[in-house]
Amino acid sequence: MTLDLILIGFGNVGRRFASLLGEQRDRLERQHDLGFRVIGIATRRHGIAYDPKAGLDLERARTIVGEGGTLDALSSRRRAGDGGTRLTSALDLIEQASHRPGARPAVLVETTILDIAHGQPATDHVRKALRSGCHVITANKGPVAFAYRELHDLANAAERSFLFEGAVMDGVPVFNFARETLPGVQVIGFRGVINSTTNHILTTMEHGGEFAEALAEMQAAGIAEADASLDVDGWDAAAKTAALVNVLMNGTITPYDVRRTGIGGMQGGEVRAAVARGERIRLVASARRNGDRIDAEVSPAPLPAGDLLAGLSGAQNAVVLKTDLLGEVAVVQLDSGLTQTAYALVSDLVTLRRRL
Amino acid sequence: MTLDLILIGFGNVGRRFASLLGEQRDRLERQHDLGFRVIGIATRRHGIAYDPKAGLDLERARTIVGEGGTLDALSSRRRAGDGGTRLTSALDLIEQASHRPGARPAVLVETTILDIAHGQPATDHVRKALRSGCHVITANKGPVAFAYRELHDLANAAERSFLFEGAVMDGVPVFNFARETLPGVQVIGFRGVINSTTNHILTTMEHGGEFAEALAEMQAAGIAEADASLDVDGWDAAAKTAALVNVLMNGTITPYDVRRTGIGGMQGGEVRAAVARGERIRLVASARRNGDRIDAEVSPAPLPAGDLLAGLSGAQNAVVLKTDLLGEVAVVQLDSGLTQTAYALVSDLVTLRRRL
Repeated sequence: MTLDLILIGFGNVGRRFASLLGEQRDRLERQHDLGFRVIGIATRRHGIAYDPKAGLDLERARTIVGEGGTLDALSSRRRAGDGGTRLTSALDLIEQASHRPGARPAVLVETTILDIAHGQPATDHVRKALRSGCHVITANKGPVAFAYRELHDLANAAERSFLFEGAVMDGVPVFNFARETLPGVQVIGFRGVINSTTNHILTTMEHGGEFAEALAEMQAAGIAEADASLDVDGWDAAAKTAALVNVLMNGTITPYDVRRTGIGGMQGGEVRAAVARGERIRLVASARRNGDRIDAEVSPAPLPAGDLLAGLSGAQNAVVLKTDLLGEVAVVQLDSGLTQTAYALVSDLVTLRRRL
Repeated sequence: MTLDLILIGFGNVGRRFASLLGEQRDRLERQHDLGFRVIGIATRRHGIAYDPKAGLDLERARTIVGEGGTLDALSSRRRAGDGGTRLTSALDLIEQASHRPGARPAVLVETTILDIAHGQPATDHVRKALRSGCHVITANKGPVAFAYRELHDLANAAERSFLFEGAVMDGVPVFNFARETLPGVQVIGFRGVINSTTNHILTTMEHGGEFAEALAEMQAAGIAEADASLDVDGWDAAAKTAALVNVLMNGTITPYDVRRTGIGGMQGGEVRAAVARGERIRLVASARRNGDRIDAEVSPAPLPAGDLLAGLSGAQNAVVLKTDLLGEVAVVQLDSGLTQTAYALVSDLVTLRRRL
């Protein structure tokens, strides 16, 4: 079976996804009867390409964007001069791609940069795609943190898939883990370390140095963004916490409902004093049921050295699920990188294929 | 869909599986369209019951065996005096259950006590069931440690399922984790702590005391068997290692191919000296590719305190998978007990249902 993909966002993650798909093409065909064509790409600064007939040349698209050019020239509609309107937005591309007569539903692959205060523009893209009859896979935490219930119901009503494994811990499965391998098990709470930048900073502070130096080191190494405030203030972790609550605990919260304390005020001495008394300070994300409510929180906490979360250093992440039948079960991401994030999208694509 | 089950082995695990099935009946029906009847039970010392028409009364069977009685009286064939031969063995029961005209294939649930030197009688039961057209789910590591390739091929040829999630880490998924949630990812090696008794003993020794005392404590608490030599000598861990190698790395080894050192010779002083220098001694199971071969080993090793495996205390287990696309990924079992083991069989039953 061949799936037609449209990529919204073609930055580092989108481009690595495209190259990983290429590398995995034979395996996907052989093991999962999964073929693919990319028929559309929409970017914010490098134009939009759409060719629903022949599909796009991914290698060429990657080269063009890598060199700072525009994708517009790849579009069949413009080349052919067939009178089609020029595509001017991602929503436009979704609209076009969902009106291919007789074709199988297209798959939106959403990897745009997130405005974490509003979960946009990803949420609008996902909503539009599901309403237009497309399937959606995304590495973006925004839609599932801000609008999971709505989008989930929309997908169900339209008999389409909405998948987002990469929203937490990149390609290391946590949503698939609970859904596919723990049938009949109820998740009654969780705790985890799910933001890499803050864990890097805390680990660096344990070995000497102050917050500002540690952050500057991360930024120089390209690990933290130039504006790291979303990580440092706990926003990124809060968004992921909301995603976990909504999906695994059937919650209906947004990141604003997560009680949140960042690590911006932490002193190196404080971090090292914890080490001296056999503890580690980690930015812990957690949730638990409290009657009808779900209490969710992100805050720095001293953990005994033997705690699984205390042992995570640098970019390592983990989620410990508290369950009814199995007690506590954890999934741990020990390595991270662009390939891991891109792989999350590949695994979603395989999940989608298995459902079809 | 209603599945007909035959239980071979009705000890603690088999009986807890039966009661857990009862507790989960509504959820399984509603969420997975999975109903069940138990039509046969074969035990070593409490007789055999078989009623392919009405199914067996599980509560009554549990009570009878709990009180030390025999199940023979539950059999319809004997009650009805219809001239049927009396069932005299588990193999006999499998044979009978596989010849129910017009019925859906039966599901063998194998939970007998294992002779770990030969993987028996579980391997014979599984082989017979697959050859007779039954599906198989088992909490036994024997078949997958000693004969995975043969049984896997047998199952494939017969278009039947052979599932064994409980063979390693009870109901905490490691086989399903790799198969269902990491499509396209190659496991190139692993390391883990997968025997609870030895980890308990090592943890106890860290806090003072010698090997013999620690073992006696485990036995008094019912955590270790009266004959704990299979755990202590690393046999249990070697069998699980072979199972992981065969399934996750496409190997064809038996527990005899695993280089094995137990913890029998360890001194308390040695264990505590490791703690004093910031390390922990753990019985580590590991495997890695070495050209065309797979090197597999079980042996006590000093680990730095920050190592995920070093942090496991008591009955906690973990497997760290080394993969091509995701680097290292770990699954951790933080709690254990009979329900966890029984749940492994429930999850296998759901996996089977999804495939049908």
